[in-house]
Amino acid sequence: MAEVSNKQVVAARDITGNPKESDMYLKSSTISLELPPEAENAVLVKNLYLSCDPYMRGTRGKDVKRLFHSFTPDSPIVGYGVCKVVDSKHPGFKKGDLVWGVTKWEEYSVITLTDSLFKIEHTDVPLSYYTGLLGMPGMTAYAGFYEVGAPKKGDYVFVSSAFGAVGQLVGQLAKLMGCYVVGSAGSKEKVEILKNKYGFDGAFNYKEEHDLDATLKRFFPEGIDIYFDNVGGDTLEAALINMRRRGRIVVAGMISQYELDEPQGIKNLLNIIYKQIKIEAFIVFDYYEHYPKFLEIVVPYIKEGKISYVEDIAEGIEKAPAALEAMFTGRSAGKQVVLVANE
Amino acid sequence: MAEVSNKQVVAARDITGNPKESDMYLKSSTISLELPPEAENAVLVKNLYLSCDPYMRGTRGKDVKRLFHSFTPDSPIVGYGVCKVVDSKHPGFKKGDLVWGVTKWEEYSVITLTDSLFKIEHTDVPLSYYTGLLGMPGMTAYAGFYEVGAPKKGDYVFVSSAFGAVGQLVGQLAKLMGCYVVGSAGSKEKVEILKNKYGFDGAFNYKEEHDLDATLKRFFPEGIDIYFDNVGGDTLEAALINMRRRGRIVVAGMISQYELDEPQGIKNLLNIIYKQIKIEAFIVFDYYEHYPKFLEIVVPYIKEGKISYVEDIAEGIEKAPAALEAMFTGRSAGKQVVLVANE
Repeated sequence: MAEVSNKQVVAARDITGNPKESDMYLKSSTISLELPPEAENAVLVKNLYLSCDPYMRGTRGKDVKRLFHSFTPDSPIVGYGVCKVVDSKHPGFKKGDLVWGVTKWEEYSVITLTDSLFKIEHTDVPLSYYTGLLGMPGMTAYAGFYEVGAPKKGDYVFVSSAFGAVGQLVGQLAKLMGCYVVGSAGSKEKVEILKNKYGFDGAFNYKEEHDLDATLKRFFPEGIDIYFDNVGGDTLEAALINMRRRGRIVVAGMISQYELDEPQGIKNLLNIIYKQIKIEAFIVFDYYEHYPKFLEIVVPYIKEGKISYVEDIAEGIEKAPAALEAMFTGRSAGKQVVLVANE
Repeated sequence: MAEVSNKQVVAARDITGNPKESDMYLKSSTISLELPPEAENAVLVKNLYLSCDPYMRGTRGKDVKRLFHSFTPDSPIVGYGVCKVVDSKHPGFKKGDLVWGVTKWEEYSVITLTDSLFKIEHTDVPLSYYTGLLGMPGMTAYAGFYEVGAPKKGDYVFVSSAFGAVGQLVGQLAKLMGCYVVGSAGSKEKVEILKNKYGFDGAFNYKEEHDLDATLKRFFPEGIDIYFDNVGGDTLEAALINMRRRGRIVVAGMISQYELDEPQGIKNLLNIIYKQIKIEAFIVFDYYEHYPKFLEIVVPYIKEGKISYVEDIAEGIEKAPAALEAMFTGRSAGKQVVLVANE
């Protein structure tokens, strides 16, 4: 069968820290649209949307173990996307299926790690949502908040990095459950959106607060039941002081710590004894069995307009490197997505 | 009704840190052996055994909230004991009942906080065991290990302060469950007892180890599934590095930290993200509903000789102040108990 051209976004080098546009380059390649007979259990897909996510950074720490790395020199970037199956040698997928999961930054990809591929059943919502709200970030918010955080109606909930794809959904899910929710973010504009669009009870710009303990006491005079931690460091220190008895600290990330030569020592850990606190870190991969339950809850909320969600869609795979840099520098106006092709 | 004499051990002063014999004094008082009509729901008991426990210290931290304080100047010391009911205006207790729970250091006590009083059903084991193995320390070990730690057969378990009343039972319960267990303690003699009497797979004297990370790697080449933490600080730092994926750190105490002017900053917390670790602190009071289940498991073990337990019984309430100091200085040869009266 004839080969077709396959544009790729390739890593120029191994990176440490946040990727820049110049760390990637475009490459032209070709691919056959039919899998070879020996490609058992593989799936060939056409990539429709690619997702820009905060985990797509280089890591300094030798201890950091990952399920996959996005940047391998001279290979296409690896990340989440929405795709259409073009050919399949896997019994669970057939030509024409729409799927989301781990793919590569190119027009067509052969996917062999089909464990992280999910069939899309609900197509009456924008397909791009499966890179965010209905995909890995959404599932991260759901698993962390519901499964790890064990929330109850009326709980006091604090979310750091609340403007991020995960944080904003945690806040909205908490509001829908009848919790009181306050979020922190890094600009005045983001704080306004958290309050006015996403319905947070309160929000603050952490860059303008000089005593985070006092800030949290202002927003949580009764203390915090659930702290959804994306940042670690000083914010975690302040939260530890303000937790309530039997509070839960759900750790999705500690982004303030990854780039330090030596991580900050956390001094307020004794509070977990005084108040019988649980601190639990998780990865979404351990919770994908709950994906159908997640859809049952979130899809109706979307259709009823009860969840707000904003995307920033860059059109064309050529725009992918700049889009990824924009996500990391906080310039994206919403969940950063790259449109590669319409169905 | 005539009053009888009631010897008491009274706090001489408010204390910070570990109590010394000289922080207490003996006092003669009198008491009626019949409760007054207005003493609704109260119970009058004769104290048989008093328990010396590590929580009976003064606290420096202003943040330390406790369910009760043992030392209030010029009042009898408050602590756990085994008692016989002499008079009762509480429907749950009657004259002659044997009970254990929170009482005072005196010959006879009026107990109004009956929530922390448990009726003793099994009297075919030594009554003094209800101050330790079958009382609060035993229940602490059980709740922390089974309920918080969620152990599985074959798990790798590390216990710090393993010679203490709680630690030694955690280790033995873990062995009975088919876990691999290593404990740390503060002397060569204690290490030998952990290995030879309590059946730990390994034990070390932390005072002789200069690199606790290397020590743990030696004992746990495959890593740790459950760390039962009684000490915090450097031991917690080393454990964090050596935890396995989805490991559980059960925090019963952080005794290395209570006396510091400023607590040590814990730098290895990022490991909880790399390995999806849960850290959970607890107090036994939240788990007393499981007490019957605990007895069902532990009483047969005791009768079958599958659990070793050593007591150091001081005879006479006059010996109580010295016994408490001995417990804190590590001179007690086993669980430190004071015999006040035989039934």
